[in-house]
Amino acid sequence: MREVDGPQCRPGEALIQVMLAGICGTDRQILKGYSGFRGIPGHEFVGRVVKCDDAGWIGKRVVGEINVTCRACEWCRRGLGRHCPRRTVMGIINRPGAFADFVALPTFNLHEVPPDVPNEAAAFTEPLAAACEILEQMPIPHGTPVAVLGDGRLGLLVAQVLQYAKAEVTVIGRHDDKLGLASKWGINIIHAERRSIPARSFTIVVEATGSPRGLEQALRIVAPRGTVVMKSTFHQPARFDTARLVVDEINLLGSRCGNFTQALELLGSGNIRVLELISKIFPLDAGVEAFEHMSRTPCLKVLLAPGASETLAALPL
Amino acid sequence: MREVDGPQCRPGEALIQVMLAGICGTDRQILKGYSGFRGIPGHEFVGRVVKCDDAGWIGKRVVGEINVTCRACEWCRRGLGRHCPRRTVMGIINRPGAFADFVALPTFNLHEVPPDVPNEAAAFTEPLAAACEILEQMPIPHGTPVAVLGDGRLGLLVAQVLQYAKAEVTVIGRHDDKLGLASKWGINIIHAERRSIPARSFTIVVEATGSPRGLEQALRIVAPRGTVVMKSTFHQPARFDTARLVVDEINLLGSRCGNFTQALELLGSGNIRVLELISKIFPLDAGVEAFEHMSRTPCLKVLLAPGASETLAALPL
Repeated sequence: MREVDGPQCRPGEALIQVMLAGICGTDRQILKGYSGFRGIPGHEFVGRVVKCDDAGWIGKRVVGEINVTCRACEWCRRGLGRHCPRRTVMGIINRPGAFADFVALPTFNLHEVPPDVPNEAAAFTEPLAAACEILEQMPIPHGTPVAVLGDGRLGLLVAQVLQYAKAEVTVIGRHDDKLGLASKWGINIIHAERRSIPARSFTIVVEATGSPRGLEQALRIVAPRGTVVMKSTFHQPARFDTARLVVDEINLLGSRCGNFTQALELLGSGNIRVLELISKIFPLDAGVEAFEHMSRTPCLKVLLAPGASETLAALPL
Repeated sequence: MREVDGPQCRPGEALIQVMLAGICGTDRQILKGYSGFRGIPGHEFVGRVVKCDDAGWIGKRVVGEINVTCRACEWCRRGLGRHCPRRTVMGIINRPGAFADFVALPTFNLHEVPPDVPNEAAAFTEPLAAACEILEQMPIPHGTPVAVLGDGRLGLLVAQVLQYAKAEVTVIGRHDDKLGLASKWGINIIHAERRSIPARSFTIVVEATGSPRGLEQALRIVAPRGTVVMKSTFHQPARFDTARLVVDEINLLGSRCGNFTQALELLGSGNIRVLELISKIFPLDAGVEAFEHMSRTPCLKVLLAPGASETLAALPL
């Protein structure tokens, strides 16, 4: 925790006062060395524009896409700026993040939050978009048997999105309270330590455990010609049995950031329950404590609230 | 090398006199323990039917699909018997293979070889079908930049099939003579030890090195949102950086056996040069020596010829 100067706000950018920011598994991996990032982390936030050349943005409540792109290369022209080779990524690659009172982003990256989406829900836009990305990458016919490996915050978002897309979803995890949420939402659950999972039984397996060992289990339970979607990033390399992949012609698909428009629509629709995923909100100046809390206690989403105590007093939790 | 009784020929099966059998990378991995197989290896062959309940097959020159399936399960009904969970696989799983004077297979598995395809070409049907499988698994638009990693027999078959499908193919290898063949056929080549390969430069990379280290290189040179096709099976697990897969949303696709009909058509068309891939033909009773030769000498396809010396004398090589 350090006092630093506020971020520069370059032409075309907006200066945003952060209202809430979410801590993601990637932030915890960054602390362990992932991506070699140094600086202010944080890439999930909702805030209010306080400064911008384009006066139309001032005062607006916004969320922001995390990849800051060149908008000129082939990837950007194809609408896939998330893969722009010249990109910076807020809080991950060469750009200060949102665990701060203020953050700057190009207005091109901003999305106004609809009035019926509260701050605590809007803070989930980025991870929810990442969950939606799976639907953009592959067709998932109604009733497809899908396992989500991992009952953490990302797993529970992915499970809801795929349930909403009418797949037959099973969450596989190790935490009664987290599995209990999924079950309450009408999603099938398996406690991995209490019930064995038949090999080759799911057409799609989403690996959201955040651990290199999750991949081995995913490869065990996916059906021949099935797909394992990898959502977790971790600092260590993974080992796996390539013969299983080749013989069963399995598809291992990396999946990262997604479409904010779709995520905001889903949040507005009320069909994705995100408020129940909030475990705790810390004032920003207790950010170190928030990270320590996550290491000590199995929990879901932890949010940081700059502006601290008066903000927290107004929160419904 | 052992004298054993000839194979049983059950109802619905044909007894085939093997004329030529090819040694594959998988056979060499089986010697190292891959798949736990014990018995007669060999799954690439051409032969003549000498015994069969269905007299129409007797005397016919045939090749045979290697997966012997139940023909009743959901996979079999979908035409994907190659993934039948009850299958045996000739020379790989619970079924004697073709490094023998005779082999038995259900007539359901047999394909008659067209008269214009010589034995030495027909022996390539199985690996050529495996190369064609890539085209069944994914669309490859004309002009797509494809790298084939590995200049061995499988790599050179894959490269030809993808060139025939009008992809823009580059073979990456370490052997002047093998790369020389590809270059003669009009395929781009890169000698991996003499020229550096730009990162993220190919839309599709086919991993056909037969080594776990090939995967790391494939992941380095594939473009974001690209596909790495894994063709090699090996006995050891592979390690790789999953963050690269996730961040660049790469697709890692296992690919195994393919369609024999398409492979025989391609062999008949003369568009795939297979005779140039034959390094040496050994009599079957020098089979051990043939395996030793492959370990000692960088070479392409080595064939075994049961019936030995008189067959060899008649071969054009």
